[in-house]
Amino acid sequence: MPPSYKSSLRGSLPFLFLFFQIIFLFIFLFLISTHYASGTKYIKQYPEFQDINVMIIFGFGFMFAFLKRFGFSGIGFNFLIVAFGLQWAVILDTFLFQQEVRIISLTSLCTGLMSVLPVLISFGAVLGKMNPVQLLMMAAVEIPLFTANRYIMTKYLAIAEHLGMMHAHIFGAYFGLSVSWLISSPSQSNIVNKEKEKSCKTSELFSMLGAVFMWMFWPSYNSVLLQDRVQKRNAIYNTYFALAVSAVTVFSVSLLMNQKGKLKMSHVRNGMLAGGVAIGYSAFMLQYPWIAMTIGFFAGLTSAISLTYFQRTLNAVSLVHDTCGVHYIFGLPGLLGGIAYSLLVITADYNSIEILGYQAIVGIGCILLTLAVSLVSGLLTGFLLKCKLFRPPTERNFFHDQPFWEFPHLASGF
Amino acid sequence: MPPSYKSSLRGSLPFLFLFFQIIFLFIFLFLISTHYASGTKYIKQYPEFQDINVMIIFGFGFMFAFLKRFGFSGIGFNFLIVAFGLQWAVILDTFLFQQEVRIISLTSLCTGLMSVLPVLISFGAVLGKMNPVQLLMMAAVEIPLFTANRYIMTKYLAIAEHLGMMHAHIFGAYFGLSVSWLISSPSQSNIVNKEKEKSCKTSELFSMLGAVFMWMFWPSYNSVLLQDRVQKRNAIYNTYFALAVSAVTVFSVSLLMNQKGKLKMSHVRNGMLAGGVAIGYSAFMLQYPWIAMTIGFFAGLTSAISLTYFQRTLNAVSLVHDTCGVHYIFGLPGLLGGIAYSLLVITADYNSIEILGYQAIVGIGCILLTLAVSLVSGLLTGFLLKCKLFRPPTERNFFHDQPFWEFPHLASGF
Amino acid sequence: MPPSYKSSLRGSLPFLFLFFQIIFLFIFLFLISTHYASGTKYIKQYPEFQDINVMIIFGFGFMFAFLKRFGFSGIGFNFLIVAFGLQWAVILDTFLFQQEVRIISLTSLCTGLMSVLPVLISFGAVLGKMNPVQLLMMAAVEIPLFTANRYIMTKYLAIAEHLGMMHAHIFGAYFGLSVSWLISSPSQSNIVNKEKEKSCKTSELFSMLGAVFMWMFWPSYNSVLLQDRVQKRNAIYNTYFALAVSAVTVFSVSLLMNQKGKLKMSHVRNGMLAGGVAIGYSAFMLQYPWIAMTIGFFAGLTSAISLTYFQRTLNAVSLVHDTCGVHYIFGLPGLLGGIAYSLLVITADYNSIEILGYQAIVGIGCILLTLAVSLVSGLLTGFLLKCKLFRPPTERNFFHDQPFWEFPHLASGF
Repeated sequence: MPPSYKSSLRGSLPFLFLFFQIIFLFIFLFLISTHYASGTKYIKQYPEFQDINVMIIFGFGFMFAFLKRFGFSGIGFNFLIVAFGLQWAVILDTFLFQQEVRIISLTSLCTGLMSVLPVLISFGAVLGKMNPVQLLMMAAVEIPLFTANRYIMTKYLAIAEHLGMMHAHIFGAYFGLSVSWLISSPSQSNIVNKEKEKSCKTSELFSMLGAVFMWMFWPSYNSVLLQDRVQKRNAIYNTYFALAVSAVTVFSVSLLMNQKGKLKMSHVRNGMLAGGVAIGYSAFMLQYPWIAMTIGFFAGLTSAISLTYFQRTLNAVSLVHDTCGVHYIFGLPGLLGGIAYSLLVITADYNSIEILGYQAIVGIGCILLTLAVSLVSGLLTGFLLKCKLFRPPTERNFFHDQPFWEFPHLASGF
Repeated sequence: MPPSYKSSLRGSLPFLFLFFQIIFLFIFLFLISTHYASGTKYIKQYPEFQDINVMIIFGFGFMFAFLKRFGFSGIGFNFLIVAFGLQWAVILDTFLFQQEVRIISLTSLCTGLMSVLPVLISFGAVLGKMNPVQLLMMAAVEIPLFTANRYIMTKYLAIAEHLGMMHAHIFGAYFGLSVSWLISSPSQSNIVNKEKEKSCKTSELFSMLGAVFMWMFWPSYNSVLLQDRVQKRNAIYNTYFALAVSAVTVFSVSLLMNQKGKLKMSHVRNGMLAGGVAIGYSAFMLQYPWIAMTIGFFAGLTSAISLTYFQRTLNAVSLVHDTCGVHYIFGLPGLLGGIAYSLLVITADYNSIEILGYQAIVGIGCILLTLAVSLVSGLLTGFLLKCKLFRPPTERNFFHDQPFWEFPHLASGF
Repeated sequence: MPPSYKSSLRGSLPFLFLFFQIIFLFIFLFLISTHYASGTKYIKQYPEFQDINVMIIFGFGFMFAFLKRFGFSGIGFNFLIVAFGLQWAVILDTFLFQQEVRIISLTSLCTGLMSVLPVLISFGAVLGKMNPVQLLMMAAVEIPLFTANRYIMTKYLAIAEHLGMMHAHIFGAYFGLSVSWLISSPSQSNIVNKEKEKSCKTSELFSMLGAVFMWMFWPSYNSVLLQDRVQKRNAIYNTYFALAVSAVTVFSVSLLMNQKGKLKMSHVRNGMLAGGVAIGYSAFMLQYPWIAMTIGFFAGLTSAISLTYFQRTLNAVSLVHDTCGVHYIFGLPGLLGGIAYSLLVITADYNSIEILGYQAIVGIGCILLTLAVSLVSGLLTGFLLKCKLFRPPTERNFFHDQPFWEFPHLASGF
């Protein structure tokens, strides 16, 4: 059955994209006295920058392609939001963080790309519940909110820039959950979602492909913004060990808890990344593998248990429907990692205890701030997106019931 | 129905490959007094070299796998032509460009790999219309022609080597179109091609996978041959911005122009690369992002409009059947980029106006030369390949109607 | 029909994994006084390290996914064994090779990752014949055996560390064949395996995807452990040429020998890697491309001929059933490369003949040692795994007849 959408809404999507694109072009032309960074030392980071590209553009896009009916929309739309969002994030980053001389460097491209990550995580929570116009508006709103949150943490709480970026997982997960809570219509959700949440073997394999690439390049993600070479080295090694342990743990625990003794591929695919998320905060400072391995172990444990017990229950009972389980992949492991960081800072062997106590408090404070900002702004965004303006009568049919990304019948229209 | 091909023709394919392979081996043994470059500074380029490998071997191979029936042949044959062509290109490059001391370096491997690109682009135009022997002969002929064209431009028109390489897109597209014009048999094309040009969801996803990897690594392609670090940096940043803008533009324009308001995945997949093609010429010299973004915008616009309006019409009306639409992905954006380069050179802030006027004229001259060489040699090649020698009575059945790359029934023959 | 496995066996798998994981954590905590390497020069190797990651984790996992029914188990289990095995290998490597100061560096992570390779190769031989508990035990046993073999070669036969690692292909292939010989039950093998060894187009494409990534990153594999930059350069160039020639040769020869003139995709996919395996031993020392090309040519020839003639015959006649043909992909090309290395060492132009004769004998000795260790320990391992302890009455049904990795029905349990 063809969707009976308001034609005006679908018509507005390309105009919105074009409008934003031309605005971005003029911002780069007039407002930013930008030229490229004069130094060339950042070129050394280029291989790591490409790893981040692969992780975010390819890895995330294909990882969320596991739903048979939304595969194409997941990949195509994810790609477009990255292409759109990184321009927006580079502009915001340049305005907020470089107030004296505005230059574009590989670091600012990297920061821009990584600032799109919370949007992609939020997408995972609302996938299948929003139309493309709503998704675009959500991306346009979430990127400045996340950048503002990072700005507050870096300037007023004086944490390092790369630590600010590591809050992306928490921010994206809780922002997405808040939006999802307001967007979901309770009457339909139980019936409709079961039908929608089917996967097939091919889509699962593509999803695994994306997840494996994310797993492999996560050490680059946790280390790319670090300038100090010892910290960068620590971040690479610790992330690698935490990922390995969390993958093995998720596999074991998920298998152990399944009543039929069978493994859910989706648990492994999702949970194996939990170690990388949790170690993000403290990876740069740990000198020994065993602490990273312990964090990876508990992150895998948390993720596997919550994916098994909570997701099904919560999706059925509560109204906060979480399509891809981002709360258990990014939200909880992120919180765990943040708390672990604060504990580790206290026990670290530095000279002055006062400063460390302060750092631990700041660490907890940053997490609470990020939680507050993401939840409140997510609710506001969800409320905004629920307005009539963005919601056609048949919004549910718009994007998914009739595939928006139809397959080209090349013979007739290629 | 099994194909009733001349058995002699199919038999000749492996002999041709073996013959060429042994010839190549002896050329390396006797004629080239080659040893590897004594310096090791090129090792620094290794990560970028690997990006080019991924782009050309994996990206191109899988991008052209979108036709359900030709997926296997596309991937397998593309791979073999790269393995064959890069040896051939390294030999030609060593003979033409290194007349005094013949050494092999990472740069010459890179140049060899990139010289295979026009062959792959031409394949996109003739896919499904030629048998493997014809494809092999086309590759064997096109690589020396492209290298000769590069040689003339570099030696007699004195342009930089990396600029010469950027003409690969134009050369490949127009060479392929010329060959396609002569190879297509008008009576069959309309009926047969419709049947052949079907895609399925899985083949489209593999194609998207290849295209996304090409998109991500295009900055490496545009910068790998540059030695100067400032130019390399410029090339990376500019290509990145141009690609992002062209992806957003193609999406918007393609959606806008579709009468049913639906998006063709193939347009996004193809058009998103247009920005990278167009910025190739001038990426090394632009100091500001907005010019690169403008070029990306117009490249996306050109590609989306021509894919929507022209491809279907031209494929139906004219005899120049262009299977993958390479004219709109590589041909037109390449021309646009070449003209933009010439305009930008004039307006650039250098010391001497005379030299710049000369450079602009040389830029236009190079494009005209490349167009002329590719069109004329394409026609000659097409004529040659149409000879009885390469054309068995049932050539159409040879490659595609009965899959040439049959799937191994492992139980019986693995 | 649901499998009638002993529930105790399936139940033991997650406990085994958890048990090993916690043991590893405590080894890192108590026994190794490990901290990370103080120098940071290894960070330069990071892009190559990521190439190895892609090759082993992604490439191998997906390459062995070509069997339609084992795709998921292949990918998922391969991934888990790497995550498990690299911790085990890093521990063993640290204990055996760094007896004075135990540090973890990028090199030891790399060594750990590469030590998992023989396990993955052995998996290819026994795929579909063992249950997951047996596979886990095999991995736990094979990694220390391979590391011990490397230790003997490096310490007592005084060969370079990277040369020791190159014996991974031989070790993995012959260890796997020995295990397969003891594990296979003759009565069932012919009937059951035919049914099991089917592939489909999608699984073949995923497999080709994995193989192409392995092909592209093989130069990194052969060069990553080399410290000398000239040797590293040689290894990259030689591997690249050998791979190209072996791909073209395998294609030609496989096509030539097929009676119907058709190509088996599986031959190309498998054989094209033979050149990289064979050149591994001597890649670091060859100064000219033609020797590498010749080795690639003969490796391709060997692999294509043996895949065509021997695999089918041997799988039918003998009891050594080799599911993925690892003997022809890794075993024979590895032997060829080892012999070529010994010949080349003799003819090399060094100062002292005595030393060279010694080196050639050592080269042959290392291969014989590796063959002996892998065959004998493989037989012992196979005998051990055949014990009642690991073999439930219906072991064949356990893993494959009823897919162990079931697809998540997201609606009910995601």
